[in-house]
Amino acid sequence: MKIAVLAPVAWRTPPRHYGPWEQMASNLCEGLVKAGVEITLFATGDSLTAGKLDYVIDKGYEEDRDQDAKVLECLHISNLMEKAGSFDLIHNHFDFLPLTYSRLISTPMVTTIHGFSSEKIVRVYQKYNDTSHYVSISDANRHPDLSYAATVYNGLDSKNFTFKQDAEDYLLFFGRLHPDKGVLEAIEIATRSNRKLKIAGIIQDEQYFKTAIEPLLNEQITFLGAAGPAQRNELLGHAYALLHPISFAEPFGLSVAEAMLCGTPVIAFNKGSMPELINHGTTGFLVDNIKEAVDAVTKIPTIDREDCRDWALSKFTTEKMVEGYLTLYHQLLNS
Amino acid sequence: MKIAVLAPVAWRTPPRHYGPWEQMASNLCEGLVKAGVEITLFATGDSLTAGKLDYVIDKGYEEDRDQDAKVLECLHISNLMEKAGSFDLIHNHFDFLPLTYSRLISTPMVTTIHGFSSEKIVRVYQKYNDTSHYVSISDANRHPDLSYAATVYNGLDSKNFTFKQDAEDYLLFFGRLHPDKGVLEAIEIATRSNRKLKIAGIIQDEQYFKTAIEPLLNEQITFLGAAGPAQRNELLGHAYALLHPISFAEPFGLSVAEAMLCGTPVIAFNKGSMPELINHGTTGFLVDNIKEAVDAVTKIPTIDREDCRDWALSKFTTEKMVEGYLTLYHQLLNS
Repeated sequence: MKIAVLAPVAWRTPPRHYGPWEQMASNLCEGLVKAGVEITLFATGDSLTAGKLDYVIDKGYEEDRDQDAKVLECLHISNLMEKAGSFDLIHNHFDFLPLTYSRLISTPMVTTIHGFSSEKIVRVYQKYNDTSHYVSISDANRHPDLSYAATVYNGLDSKNFTFKQDAEDYLLFFGRLHPDKGVLEAIEIATRSNRKLKIAGIIQDEQYFKTAIEPLLNEQITFLGAAGPAQRNELLGHAYALLHPISFAEPFGLSVAEAMLCGTPVIAFNKGSMPELINHGTTGFLVDNIKEAVDAVTKIPTIDREDCRDWALSKFTTEKMVEGYLTLYHQLLNS
Repeated sequence: MKIAVLAPVAWRTPPRHYGPWEQMASNLCEGLVKAGVEITLFATGDSLTAGKLDYVIDKGYEEDRDQDAKVLECLHISNLMEKAGSFDLIHNHFDFLPLTYSRLISTPMVTTIHGFSSEKIVRVYQKYNDTSHYVSISDANRHPDLSYAATVYNGLDSKNFTFKQDAEDYLLFFGRLHPDKGVLEAIEIATRSNRKLKIAGIIQDEQYFKTAIEPLLNEQITFLGAAGPAQRNELLGHAYALLHPISFAEPFGLSVAEAMLCGTPVIAFNKGSMPELINHGTTGFLVDNIKEAVDAVTKIPTIDREDCRDWALSKFTTEKMVEGYLTLYHQLLNS
């Protein structure tokens, strides 16, 4: 089975820091290679894979801003489309644009919809609904107007997330610094709980950071910047709990799954995919507001950190994700 | 011969006011229909043509800003590409993106390059250089790294531009209000010439207009806003001369050809396509700076307005453009 995996070209695959879509394309590729599948990864030229790498774009447009994203995207996509005949199947992680080439080639294409940046892009997915094979990354993220071939949860490399039996005393916010992610709410929860809060992530909304977040930083509430893989493992593993007070229906919360892999429970606002990610009362708590989150912090001692690890291992590993996609690939190629 | 003409979807085809690429796609379509060619125009749904109209986008993204241009563009392009087999030839007026679909279809595609918005987009044209048929709209606009099948000048419907033997006393600036187009320079030329200046066009750079242009408006220097076809004909036809003191290598100056069709001479900075458009000393003057432009204003009485009209009729009509493209289509389809 020869599979082409089409990654985005915003960042390297895998990303150095932020880049969840590229991360999942990478995890899937490496997992498929291990499973003996012949993989060609289409990504930026500085990408890393145990499979074959094919590229026309040297660096991601977010890493070298002196590039035209539209130019890079269409060169990258067409490079694969023009070689479509060499593959049994194309797995698209690149959002909607590749769909518009899909009826001009005969190779079937699976598209993982990692999220809808806007309701306006749904129109493209609708057009290709009958001839495409869409995968949602949580049941919650399924759009009512689209048909899906499967839900396959994001899968993480469990080796990168070390189980820690004993936590330190800090709460953790881990993610993009953006109102959607609830940094301000996390600060409020930590303050009312009279606990330290460590904040790690890229600043995605500079204005929000400068005006809303930075003035609140002090000895108790600290900002660490973006964390790479090693620091991420340390931060997540030693946290008393991860706070995830999101204000949007998040398609999947990578840091939620990552925290649980380290044994760290999660307190999340009950939106989007959170009920699928968190086993309420066993691996953390689903809450509706700041007050409930503060109450939940007091209940963290009732959570067994091994339960968090076991739950995440059973659902959110690369092996589980590979298993889900291989089942789908075989279905499509045998039908 | 069945031809598909792919227009941009920023504006209606033909545009209501501004929209030079859409205007040329329209002029070509209507001219080809008159020449007996079977034409399907792919444009916005509110477009007008004597041929067949095919569309998936109701309104241009510049006319209804509550739309996602990227979504509209790929739906519009793929709509044609998925029907490519119904046509003998596709004529692309839509910039570089359609090229990236062109190797997935078997219908040949001619691409008129109406301009390079940035040197960064040249990379796409380079990739498809050997399998595409590029047309430049002036010899001056040819990129040294690309091969061209022909130069075909933009063609105008001469019925829309009435010859006027007797001019009024005002100078005219007609075009986008943007530093590239030299509005400020035109004001300076008019002021030093002690003549009225009428300015017409869309404000493309709001900041430039507010800070540099608006403070200079008075009884002598007037701004009329964007002009539709009827007002354009009046303004161009009655002008003493058109001032065109551009600061960039303009691929083609539509208003320059339009003015001459009305019999109005043009004083232009000698850049880009201007030496191809203006017959120096006969239909206007090519100058290098404001001082030379002021001198040229004093020489306008030496220009015979009929010479302007005749020159423009011999080079810049729809019929000439259709003739140029039909020659190319036949070459390609017979080769």
